[in-house]
Amino acid sequence: MKATRRASAPLFVLGLGPGAPGLLTPEATAALEEASVIVGYTGYVRLVPQHFLQGKRVLSTGMTGELARAAEAVDAALGGAATALVCSGDPGVYALAGLVLEQLEARGLPPSELPLHIVPGVPAVCAAAALLGAPLMHDFACISLSDLLTPWPLIRKRLDHAFAADFVVALYNPRSKRRVSQLGEAVTIALAHKAGDTPVGIVKNAFRPGQEVHIAPLRELPFDLVDMFTLLIIGNSESRVVPGTGNSPLSWESGARMLTPRGYQSKYDMGR
Amino acid sequence: MKATRRASAPLFVLGLGPGAPGLLTPEATAALEEASVIVGYTGYVRLVPQHFLQGKRVLSTGMTGELARAAEAVDAALGGAATALVCSGDPGVYALAGLVLEQLEARGLPPSELPLHIVPGVPAVCAAAALLGAPLMHDFACISLSDLLTPWPLIRKRLDHAFAADFVVALYNPRSKRRVSQLGEAVTIALAHKAGDTPVGIVKNAFRPGQEVHIAPLRELPFDLVDMFTLLIIGNSESRVVPGTGNSPLSWESGARMLTPRGYQSKYDMGR
Repeated sequence: MKATRRASAPLFVLGLGPGAPGLLTPEATAALEEASVIVGYTGYVRLVPQHFLQGKRVLSTGMTGELARAAEAVDAALGGAATALVCSGDPGVYALAGLVLEQLEARGLPPSELPLHIVPGVPAVCAAAALLGAPLMHDFACISLSDLLTPWPLIRKRLDHAFAADFVVALYNPRSKRRVSQLGEAVTIALAHKAGDTPVGIVKNAFRPGQEVHIAPLRELPFDLVDMFTLLIIGNSESRVVPGTGNSPLSWESGARMLTPRGYQSKYDMGR
Repeated sequence: MKATRRASAPLFVLGLGPGAPGLLTPEATAALEEASVIVGYTGYVRLVPQHFLQGKRVLSTGMTGELARAAEAVDAALGGAATALVCSGDPGVYALAGLVLEQLEARGLPPSELPLHIVPGVPAVCAAAALLGAPLMHDFACISLSDLLTPWPLIRKRLDHAFAADFVVALYNPRSKRRVSQLGEAVTIALAHKAGDTPVGIVKNAFRPGQEVHIAPLRELPFDLVDMFTLLIIGNSESRVVPGTGNSPLSWESGARMLTPRGYQSKYDMGR
């Protein structure tokens, strides 16, 4: 008989969605209930409904502790404790699912060595889009403006190609206190390909306290509204604003919504 | 006093997620409970748990009836019946949120004229990614290969730009019974920019009966496995397969998973 290895407990890498309890999936809820250890960035652990945290080991760390979080979660599960590693949005979009696989790879452990459950969630781009109306609808690209782990020339290249091909473009991490120049450069690249009145959706803290939604033309983007909790969605050449009512019918508060039509309708018979 | 208009009831345009009840959000559940009329494509209405349909008016139509569905849903809500227009995945990604706004626009009704609630859901791309491991992680583009409403030259242009800029690329609607040539062309375009061993994730019926998951190198894509219920995720230049165990360690069943590292780690200190 082989020497027995202590059996690993399940490791859930789960998406909390934007943070509203109404957008937390039952599968994520069940994982939070089952877990005895909960690991995550402090800001996201704060999004977990309090009763899931009571009586549990909670390991929360600061913004740049991603590697440590992934390692701690793998350690806890291998040590026999059911563990939930929490991410905001979806765990596979600019989040921690990949770091967990990298951890296992670095330890020479195949993913099948532990019960690994990646529980998808509503990503920030879909949460923002739902508030804005229907800005995505068609082909779109997600690009992070953070050059912490990606060289800026590559990000610039992606922006250029995405705008050249008329994708709707969602910008993650558009601006932080210390990182302010990238958004201006991104807008300059966009304006080389797109009309100045292309609508841009600006969504801060979607479905969370402090939610703010704005729609502005690309050439008049209110940079000061944009911070690290903001996601931007820049329309394609067909995107437009459906006006609301009242004195400022183009404002979101008056009911204006951002619309990217589904296809290139002008060229086709919609009835096909 | 103004002539009273019959008040509109709420219209929920909601995402069912991939179809598993565990991935249906509480907000979508509440909307299905509140609605007395449920509208959707027959295949998606089938994903709605049966008890939500009992005693309700259910309007389900075939694949190409999108315009009729959006119009019927708007009619029902304006007529005073709380209505749920159901979409699979997220309602804003290749789905119906935009058609509802187009309907309102065509009728000269501002979106604020009815209580319109767009309820985001887990999109197909995130469901597929969760099963595959962590293929997205970084900048990605979603492209539909359906040329029903979009001219094929534009789709080809988007593929070319997305691969040139080393995006991870998710292909929606890759192939149907009558539409078979596009996927081959897309792979040819990909191979002009990417190595033949770039991993491709192939996910059919994610989180639904009939689920199938495969990982294959780009140059050996098993076209016959791909149908209209399949989503493909083509890695970027850093994507790789983390092997599982057993006789075919590169197969998904043996635990192999697809990984796109978070950043361009080789160039940077991961501890930053």
